[in-house]
Amino acid sequence: MRLALKIAYDGTLYHGYARQPGIETIEGALEKRLREMGAIGEGEHLQVASRTDKGVSAAGNVIAFDTDMESESVANALAHSFRGIWVLGFAEVPEGFNPRHAVRKKYRYYLYNDGIDIGMLKKAVSLFIGEHDFTNFARLDGRNPVRKIEMAKVSGRRIIKIDFEGKSFLWNQVRRMVAAAEKAGRGEASLEELQNALNKKSRANFGIAPPENLLLMNLYYKKTLKFHSVEKTLKFISEMAKKAEVRASLSKDMARVCRFLTK
Amino acid sequence: MRLALKIAYDGTLYHGYARQPGIETIEGALEKRLREMGAIGEGEHLQVASRTDKGVSAAGNVIAFDTDMESESVANALAHSFRGIWVLGFAEVPEGFNPRHAVRKKYRYYLYNDGIDIGMLKKAVSLFIGEHDFTNFARLDGRNPVRKIEMAKVSGRRIIKIDFEGKSFLWNQVRRMVAAAEKAGRGEASLEELQNALNKKSRANFGIAPPENLLLMNLYYKKTLKFHSVEKTLKFISEMAKKAEVRASLSKDMARVCRFLTK
Repeated sequence: MRLALKIAYDGTLYHGYARQPGIETIEGALEKRLREMGAIGEGEHLQVASRTDKGVSAAGNVIAFDTDMESESVANALAHSFRGIWVLGFAEVPEGFNPRHAVRKKYRYYLYNDGIDIGMLKKAVSLFIGEHDFTNFARLDGRNPVRKIEMAKVSGRRIIKIDFEGKSFLWNQVRRMVAAAEKAGRGEASLEELQNALNKKSRANFGIAPPENLLLMNLYYKKTLKFHSVEKTLKFISEMAKKAEVRASLSKDMARVCRFLTK
Repeated sequence: MRLALKIAYDGTLYHGYARQPGIETIEGALEKRLREMGAIGEGEHLQVASRTDKGVSAAGNVIAFDTDMESESVANALAHSFRGIWVLGFAEVPEGFNPRHAVRKKYRYYLYNDGIDIGMLKKAVSLFIGEHDFTNFARLDGRNPVRKIEMAKVSGRRIIKIDFEGKSFLWNQVRRMVAAAEKAGRGEASLEELQNALNKKSRANFGIAPPENLLLMNLYYKKTLKFHSVEKTLKFISEMAKKAEVRASLSKDMARVCRFLTK
């Protein structure tokens, strides 16, 4: 039977998704555990929708593998095996299902608004919509640099959220688009410069936004995958989010009070 | 010369303030570094305003010690020595100054509002104002259990902040008052039960709120201490707070998306 798992993870705790010998990666941790459980054999590997970079988190990545074990027990056994990796749901999928064949991926990038012109940021982000040659906004790896951004959106005020949707993205593409748009929002780059870089009229490097603020939000398939949820994991993530909010509030007060105390 | 330092710290990274042999504490880390620098001698120790418990953070605790070194260079050398301990400011103080002799301390406790009746919480918190025998709301250590709460206030909605001010507090007192008030806010204890426990009409144990959500906000002295600020530390704390806010926003979205994904 072929099993698909919806997984979330805190990318800051691992050296990226893809396995590397001697380094703690998300794929490495998952495969090790699945082998120990006897869910996959020695030479067998996982397939994954998105090989996120070091530091990048995911709310809904999808892995798939063949197994003889019962799907619910695999999902439950994995659920609490790791620090910072959570199995959210499981679905039995047709033979040959490859999670990489998502028709759409959604990424969200978070920026703290310490003086960004949101109007300008929105204009900059909207330049990326449509089909472009993203040579100036990616780390090229031999793949076709032409990609299509189906949707790009800016929301939020104090914490700015920038969403991108597309069938597929190049290596570092989201972080490079964000860095360029942020530069425009700070008045450090003009819209023309971005447009010229997109039209490949010039070579350009607007830098790369840090990975820890990037979240792979979701993946969409032609035929929607129906996942059975792993309740204990969902509950844990919900508690974790509440704790993070409380700590952020405390940190914010600490910064404010510290500034005031020594005035 | 006697030197007072205003310090802040993330209490979740240390085993409390007070030094203990073989255990990483805030006092232990500070004294070790000061000795290495030659700012204090082998048998000399720090005095401190508040010996916060394991897990409790501070935005403005105060330490004092005698030193022959120049005050600004001590403060600057210490500023970036530790993970999670920050020197915010320094002040030369009169001989014999003991930071423990604050006339008032302010603590803030943070609660995530997942179904707390704020009106009831406010009523419960206000019961503590004034002079009471806090036997039922503290871990007793032989000290007089009568204390006076000068101010108690509830603010915020999603993240509730509960402030307490008083000359001094008993061991665990804030966390036990918060636990009792929270129980009232959740309908798990009545105001009468709290009042009876305060009047010592009954023995009562309302539990203890977790330490990581408690912040020692500030200390007040009869003669206000004028601290010179350590700018690099203030900047660092401000950046840290921004990062915490961004991560909290990401965690919140992750929890929301995860719940939705597997529906």
